[in-house]
Amino acid sequence: MSSIDKVLARIDANLDNSLDRLFDLLKIKSISTDPAFSADCRAAAEWLAKDLTGMGIEATVRETEGHPMVVGHRKSGKAGPHVLFYGHYDVQPVDPLNLWDTDPFEPSIVTREDGTKVIVARGSADDKGQLMTFVEAARAYLAETGDLPIDVSILFEGEEESGSPSLDPFLKATKDELTCDLALVCDTGMWDPETPAISIMLRGMVGDEIIVRAANRDLHSGHYGGSAQNPNHIVASIIAGLHDENGRITLPGFYDGVKDIPESLAKMWDGLGFSSEEFLGEIGLKYPRGENDRQPLEHIWTRPTAEVNGMWGGYQGAGSKTVIPAEAHAKFTFRLVEGQDPDKIQDAFRAYVRSKVPADCTVEFLAKDGSPALALDPNMPVIEKGKKALKDEWGKDTALIGMGGSIPIVGDFKRMLGMDSLMIGFGLEDDQIHSPNEKYNLTSFHKGIRSWARLIGELAETA
Amino acid sequence: MSSIDKVLARIDANLDNSLDRLFDLLKIKSISTDPAFSADCRAAAEWLAKDLTGMGIEATVRETEGHPMVVGHRKSGKAGPHVLFYGHYDVQPVDPLNLWDTDPFEPSIVTREDGTKVIVARGSADDKGQLMTFVEAARAYLAETGDLPIDVSILFEGEEESGSPSLDPFLKATKDELTCDLALVCDTGMWDPETPAISIMLRGMVGDEIIVRAANRDLHSGHYGGSAQNPNHIVASIIAGLHDENGRITLPGFYDGVKDIPESLAKMWDGLGFSSEEFLGEIGLKYPRGENDRQPLEHIWTRPTAEVNGMWGGYQGAGSKTVIPAEAHAKFTFRLVEGQDPDKIQDAFRAYVRSKVPADCTVEFLAKDGSPALALDPNMPVIEKGKKALKDEWGKDTALIGMGGSIPIVGDFKRMLGMDSLMIGFGLEDDQIHSPNEKYNLTSFHKGIRSWARLIGELAETA
Repeated sequence: MSSIDKVLARIDANLDNSLDRLFDLLKIKSISTDPAFSADCRAAAEWLAKDLTGMGIEATVRETEGHPMVVGHRKSGKAGPHVLFYGHYDVQPVDPLNLWDTDPFEPSIVTREDGTKVIVARGSADDKGQLMTFVEAARAYLAETGDLPIDVSILFEGEEESGSPSLDPFLKATKDELTCDLALVCDTGMWDPETPAISIMLRGMVGDEIIVRAANRDLHSGHYGGSAQNPNHIVASIIAGLHDENGRITLPGFYDGVKDIPESLAKMWDGLGFSSEEFLGEIGLKYPRGENDRQPLEHIWTRPTAEVNGMWGGYQGAGSKTVIPAEAHAKFTFRLVEGQDPDKIQDAFRAYVRSKVPADCTVEFLAKDGSPALALDPNMPVIEKGKKALKDEWGKDTALIGMGGSIPIVGDFKRMLGMDSLMIGFGLEDDQIHSPNEKYNLTSFHKGIRSWARLIGELAETA
Repeated sequence: MSSIDKVLARIDANLDNSLDRLFDLLKIKSISTDPAFSADCRAAAEWLAKDLTGMGIEATVRETEGHPMVVGHRKSGKAGPHVLFYGHYDVQPVDPLNLWDTDPFEPSIVTREDGTKVIVARGSADDKGQLMTFVEAARAYLAETGDLPIDVSILFEGEEESGSPSLDPFLKATKDELTCDLALVCDTGMWDPETPAISIMLRGMVGDEIIVRAANRDLHSGHYGGSAQNPNHIVASIIAGLHDENGRITLPGFYDGVKDIPESLAKMWDGLGFSSEEFLGEIGLKYPRGENDRQPLEHIWTRPTAEVNGMWGGYQGAGSKTVIPAEAHAKFTFRLVEGQDPDKIQDAFRAYVRSKVPADCTVEFLAKDGSPALALDPNMPVIEKGKKALKDEWGKDTALIGMGGSIPIVGDFKRMLGMDSLMIGFGLEDDQIHSPNEKYNLTSFHKGIRSWARLIGELAETA
């Protein structure tokens, strides 16, 4: 048996142990957006540092202004590329809790009606399950061969779900330590349950939150209705005016610099047989909503979007309350594509909002950081290695795809460390990340581990 | 001293006792919209029945499907008109509690910088303080003269702030008992702190609540943004589309039957010297928002309105959550004027909402009852008596005014019992009813009691 075959056999034989470790990590309530769970975030970091060190990748918990980082290294000056593997141990909030079928922090394996086995827990897919695929691949290599065939560093952060406020200063401070030949980023997905994928396009993001204030107190809607400004109406008109009747975003200059995709990519995507009926059917919808002159894959990969993630104002309780509230709120996110500048988009948004706020009302903006979109060169040599490793494991050609979500770290690695990223992950569309009943397919976990082992082997062969 | 002078002197001498009783009533947390306060509502009803009976108006607590009614009578077949005095003992919810300077259910008298003394508590103005002005006037009459000069019945309800669901069946069942010559309704206000008023126009109301549902679960706004419907955007577009750029409501047929006010009334209102700068300045605003070709008093008295009292969807917590929610909500109230049919308005609203909901989304309506607007004949003889009593007390001519709010009971009395209502009250624009720090001027309470005593005397003289 070749050394990679032995490593793969060990992965198969030890799958139960790998699952036990994943479950231990999933039980830690590392919700980064809520300060009530700060100690849990730290516990997750400590668990990971201990696990890595125990298997032979010397790792430590590093302090930040926010939740800590975990950094590990296994370096012996191998000839192959030195890779930095990135993942995040924090998870999204779990509300609405009543929509979960099980406790989000009590992981279990559920067998679905079609026989699919899935790991159900908050963070199972985003991102604890994914990051452990790499950790388990490295562990199997170390246990089987006594070493790794390439130099490996690790960076796990704990603020990915809350905008990574500590990442920039941390990367600045650890630039020399963390700059490698290549980053491996696992926070992405497969094309479908059989087809592996490498993500070559990521949308960027700008977030903003507004508070519109009118009267200096809540008013009786009978006494003041029709005369005093109602912040609910102002915020609603701001939201409603963001799109025109064709689904295009109305901010001046919003589409400046946005390009159509290259013919070759358009052709490959046509070949993927994407069905918006299926994509939307799975979530109970039928008709794509975006710009009505664009193809469905463009809506979710290569066209910029504007979404209101939350809005509220006035009375939300049972029954009625005849009130005109003093203020109303909304949280916005814009997904950006290549060619858009986050700062310019934010400026255009704020100018638009101000233009919609009456002269005797005010608006406050709660700033959020933005990140530009990122598109990789599909001809990068390492993408060829990735395609081979994935085809060996899954038996199918690898799709080069876009991603609707943002992975700002990939842009940070490029901008701050001059480092390219290979984005490979094993998430699926129906994983319900950020939603109740998040899951990760057992196949994703098992074959994901095997895929990383194969890729580590492929990368070593460049030596 | 005439008997009315003796009664007035007794009112003055006993003001502290009157305040003690009012405070006892204000301490009872009779919030009718929230089932958690059902026992408090009953306690308020029992307190009132006991107080009335103790002073000589035989009163009982009457059961309904909801909160109980209080009914009392003092009848001896007097020659004057038999009057039914109406008030409500329930109060609005107190949220947001953090904006109250004092506990809403611990009443106190506060002396403002300008020397004005005000009674601060939830319900001080709406409606416990107001209803006790009549009770105290009757008590003084009974104590001073041993009787009342006219026959008096009392109806206090406990569901005025929650749409009065039990009122219709109760009025049907007690029609013979409660039908009098005239109703006195105290849930109204003065023109300004020196000028008494009789309200001759009340806006009606239609309420509705919508839940718009899109995907069958919350979605990641990066993965589905730009493709899946976002209920926040749908609800916002429904709200934003309700008014055109001139402030007119866009529902088809909404203004059918709405008339301009008579020339004579327009002239009288001109003479009131209403300043929208002052009216809005007091609440921190400057510019009237309503239909821009109408006068400010029309906006708040004689023009129909549409207000969103509450809206919400998606994430409202700290930080951000990149979610497209499965549903979004809004609560609407329409204030109606003479000539508008509540059922037709509701039908038009629902048709409009349905037209804005995409084919693969749904909308649910949570029905609310409506009430038509009411306009009284300014030449009713009893209005002359009211004007005289009020001028005797306040020394100024009484303004005949409209009211922006709804008092459905006045329509119910007319429609179900064939009974006209004289609407006199002593509330002021800055009472902050339905808001934190609700107050009732001590002058309103004291001179309000004296005003009712005078009116009782005036009505007796028709004998």
